[in-house]
Amino acid sequence: MTYRSRLAAAVESRGGLCVGIDPMPSVLAAWGVQDDVAGLERVSRGIVEGLGEHAAVFKPQSAFFEPFGAAGIAVLERVLDDIGQAGALSILDVKRGDIGSSMDGYARAYLTDGAPLAADAITVNPYLGVGTLESTFALAKAEGRGVYVLARTSNPGGAAIQGAVVDGVSVAQHVLDELTVLNASHDDLIGVVLGATHDDLGCDPSHFNGSILAPGIGVQGASMSDLERIFAKVLPNVLPNASRFVIGSGPEELFSRFNELLGR
Amino acid sequence: MTYRSRLAAAVESRGGLCVGIDPMPSVLAAWGVQDDVAGLERVSRGIVEGLGEHAAVFKPQSAFFEPFGAAGIAVLERVLDDIGQAGALSILDVKRGDIGSSMDGYARAYLTDGAPLAADAITVNPYLGVGTLESTFALAKAEGRGVYVLARTSNPGGAAIQGAVVDGVSVAQHVLDELTVLNASHDDLIGVVLGATHDDLGCDPSHFNGSILAPGIGVQGASMSDLERIFAKVLPNVLPNASRFVIGSGPEELFSRFNELLGR
Repeated sequence: MTYRSRLAAAVESRGGLCVGIDPMPSVLAAWGVQDDVAGLERVSRGIVEGLGEHAAVFKPQSAFFEPFGAAGIAVLERVLDDIGQAGALSILDVKRGDIGSSMDGYARAYLTDGAPLAADAITVNPYLGVGTLESTFALAKAEGRGVYVLARTSNPGGAAIQGAVVDGVSVAQHVLDELTVLNASHDDLIGVVLGATHDDLGCDPSHFNGSILAPGIGVQGASMSDLERIFAKVLPNVLPNASRFVIGSGPEELFSRFNELLGR
Repeated sequence: MTYRSRLAAAVESRGGLCVGIDPMPSVLAAWGVQDDVAGLERVSRGIVEGLGEHAAVFKPQSAFFEPFGAAGIAVLERVLDDIGQAGALSILDVKRGDIGSSMDGYARAYLTDGAPLAADAITVNPYLGVGTLESTFALAKAEGRGVYVLARTSNPGGAAIQGAVVDGVSVAQHVLDELTVLNASHDDLIGVVLGATHDDLGCDPSHFNGSILAPGIGVQGASMSDLERIFAKVLPNVLPNASRFVIGSGPEELFSRFNELLGR
């Protein structure tokens, strides 16, 4: 099965919300655990324990596992395994980007059957050129996995480079246009990241045919009702992500916060 | 001591060359080891064993450790420790880039005393905006460490986004200009990555006051003599990096290849 068909099935049965697993120090404190590797494991696996049978997709943020070195990465391996065991999909937020053999190393790490950190999809960064990602897309296709390319991120300062002009369009639009062409030969496995926090995206995703991961719901200021206004006719392709709003008030609030966002 | 003063001392005593630790599958094969975590450890630690007392700086590429999950990251921890024990500096090539608390997570992981993966410097990606990196620069300053920001990478396709136009200049120039200002209040700890493979860099680094990491020497096609032509008056700030040319022919060739590049 392709990534897109797996994603569609998961969203159909469980609803269209991605839960960010962002075990940052303030979240660990809210869960009443220490800022150490045991606390990291308690929170990140506790999120999957609480919501694993209910959420379609989880997005672990690698930046909160890496500070603990190999021990933190071992926790991330277990979290990814938990997500799969619960029948949900994982988008591992690593935002990797490199060239040639180095980019191939990242693709091997995160998109290959049997790799300790294999995820259903990952996020990647296009600064080195969309062309540097083509072998990653090819591997993802062979493995039935997905890739989300940063286009317009949710932070206000993202416009500086993402709004620069190339061939008469913004960098974000350039990325969208390149990926639209590539998706035709890649089972539409290539998605984009477009922040839901902007009144003006600085690009037009109306012709983009891949999945649109939209972070920024909740603490970053966007609401689920903003999505229709921002994304209009491609709204069915949008996968909104919420992290701290759902996970940031401790384990007791997980389920009610999750249901609140899904309007249940 | 600041990163710049530590780097200057290392280059003064050992010569201006950074040795890339890129234990990719073809390099493992050249060393006669299997493409597994034991082979990874043999090659990556073997490079430091062979050149640790001679090279000023090593640049391990994280992309070749991550495919082995936590076990690969444990090897990377040991490689970083070996580099420090040998009296050399480490630039960990991770090319991380994110916003807010996530970027703070990466800074904590790689630039904080006592972190398992602490390096003397790291590489970062500015696609989300140079502003998203400011707290990383602040932490690096407090810790006496360095940060190299991607400006113009060594691959031909890098020009697509890095050559886009913002406020009348290329994105690469915009990054250089922003960092030049920031360096004035950050002990010049902020460096850039500028590929040594280009006849035309697409930006002018002549006013940039930080360290310039220049990959692409050897297999990617640039030679040490290209550097003077490309970098002219900022040549003293350039730290060329070579990887496969030095490490790609097995352990017996390490020392002679290293000396060849340094003209010894």
